[in-house]
Amino acid sequence: MAEPSDLAYDVFSRQCPSRGTLEHVTGRWGALTLGALYDSTFRFNELRRRVDGVSEKMLSQTLQALERDGLVHRDARPTNPPHVEYRLTPLGREVAERLLALIHFVESRQDEVLAARERHDAARGGR
Amino acid sequence: MAEPSDLAYDVFSRQCPSRGTLEHVTGRWGALTLGALYDSTFRFNELRRRVDGVSEKMLSQTLQALERDGLVHRDARPTNPPHVEYRLTPLGREVAERLLALIHFVESRQDEVLAARERHDAARGGR
Repeated sequence: MAEPSDLAYDVFSRQCPSRGTLEHVTGRWGALTLGALYDSTFRFNELRRRVDGVSEKMLSQTLQALERDGLVHRDARPTNPPHVEYRLTPLGREVAERLLALIHFVESRQDEVLAARERHDAARGGR
Repeated sequence: MAEPSDLAYDVFSRQCPSRGTLEHVTGRWGALTLGALYDSTFRFNELRRRVDGVSEKMLSQTLQALERDGLVHRDARPTNPPHVEYRLTPLGREVAERLLALIHFVESRQDEVLAARERHDAARGGR
């Protein structure tokens, strides 16, 4: 992609920078972080509790990547002690809306997924 | 979740089985595989070319997980040599629609993401 601004981005091409963005957005912790921030701003430790299972290191890396991509804003107020909050940017909000449509759909059809797994495993003589 | 069928699934809970489904759907290769199959059925090697960069092993594992979840159907015709095609199930199609809405949005706003990264890196003294 010599002139990215003139060409369509295509996540199916391994060279395209949009693939990396998609991975930040849909990665294990990226998706849950964006989904959580859609509802509320959070301080780091609040967010860590909401995104159940994430380590401090992984949440920190996830937030840094999303901040660099312009999807999350880190709001640090110069108080003592400093008060730091994370919130979505307008672009992050638009991404999170589409992500939450997917997340809510997956949750709503999870019964079907579990039934499919049971049929699949039974056809192969159990797990 | 004692009685999954009576309770809402919640991907934010690390115990909830919907989190695993979300990871199959949004994983690095799962998302691209579902997106590719939305346009067409594919034989294995055709799909491998479309999902640029995937290894044979990773594509095979991805397809197996999506098949077990009831999102992809593996159609094996008893010809000689056997003819095997992969296609989305109706549920897989509904998932892929939502995923493609996210993918197309990320592609369409990639210029803004690249600009945000430049600003971010410049504010930190360049790469």
